[in-house]
Amino acid sequence: MKSLTEQLWFEVPHRRGFLNITETVEELVRKSGVKEGLCLVNAMHITASVFINDNESGLLNDFELWLEKLAPEKPHSQYRHNGAEDNADAHLKRSVMGREVVVAITNGRLDFGPWEQIFYGEFDGMRRKRVLVKIIGE
Amino acid sequence: MKSLTEQLWFEVPHRRGFLNITETVEELVRKSGVKEGLCLVNAMHITASVFINDNESGLLNDFELWLEKLAPEKPHSQYRHNGAEDNADAHLKRSVMGREVVVAITNGRLDFGPWEQIFYGEFDGMRRKRVLVKIIGE
Amino acid sequence: MKSLTEQLWFEVPHRRGFLNITETVEELVRKSGVKEGLCLVNAMHITASVFINDNESGLLNDFELWLEKLAPEKPHSQYRHNGAEDNADAHLKRSVMGREVVVAITNGRLDFGPWEQIFYGEFDGMRRKRVLVKIIGE
Repeated sequence: MKSLTEQLWFEVPHRRGFLNITETVEELVRKSGVKEGLCLVNAMHITASVFINDNESGLLNDFELWLEKLAPEKPHSQYRHNGAEDNADAHLKRSVMGREVVVAITNGRLDFGPWEQIFYGEFDGMRRKRVLVKIIGE
Repeated sequence: MKSLTEQLWFEVPHRRGFLNITETVEELVRKSGVKEGLCLVNAMHITASVFINDNESGLLNDFELWLEKLAPEKPHSQYRHNGAEDNADAHLKRSVMGREVVVAITNGRLDFGPWEQIFYGEFDGMRRKRVLVKIIGE
Repeated sequence: MKSLTEQLWFEVPHRRGFLNITETVEELVRKSGVKEGLCLVNAMHITASVFINDNESGLLNDFELWLEKLAPEKPHSQYRHNGAEDNADAHLKRSVMGREVVVAITNGRLDFGPWEQIFYGEFDGMRRKRVLVKIIGE
């Protein structure tokens, strides 16, 4: 069995934002030499998400508005977590979008449908945060 | 390490619907010959979901109504993604239900609790769409 | 390839509650002898969840209130699933929080960010229920 472990660092300059990290993950699959296996990509922070969806700017805007409706940031005082912190909403938003994705590797590539792209979803940014990529297989 | 990769095709005749795909996945586990491992089942389209829940028609109806409340289809104009498209709500609904499941394989079978069943959740149907099954193990 | 399969049993004394199961899973990783691999942790029941978030009591309280807003328990009659049963809301809440987590194992340990902790989320308790831990790797 082969394996590869890498951490990706991001600093989103706003509180919330989405980054398309598909190419970076694809490069790591090549680097791993794994032809058949699984690729786990997960946020290492609990106020961020890794998810798969469409790389379309209108849709990413819809996600921002929708998540703010499901789990509004303000007023900060509505959440008990917000004593010294103000990011309770980020924990909730990340729960909707998910912590991780597991992607099949087939013939040495991410085995994707036509529009699948991997995103890092930041909900409490303006600081350096990490994503973990773990690849196992043969 | 053994592996198996298969694509399942579905065409749901309505915009939304749920299909129980448990038996098909179980057959693929047998076919793979894997006794101990992991089975990834994921939607290859970003307006569909694979999830595990109860095979009970009342509950599936509750899911339909609940998702429509959390992420209503109409009016289509409420979403920026809906220019040439009208399926923004499907992207959001799929985010709630999840893209994929990872199921343990133990003694050559899906290692399930008493009521776990795998569903394909379609949120933008009336077209042929795919699910990927990837099995790895020994 | 090495593998380990274990079932954890819990009985939460209330309808809803959260249990931090990180240490138990970490012990199973040690027991497995796997140095590089993947660890799947999933609820075996469809009214419970396994998720990763922060071990902070204010936040866990926020989750309880937020989930009750997104998928209220009462009135029970609002859900078709609630004929003989009264737990439709538990199926919906678990869908928001997720059935499973997949965690990387690196150098024989759960490869976690600074605040990641694994929780069992119970949404229909007062009975014995199970979590499955499946570890594969080398």
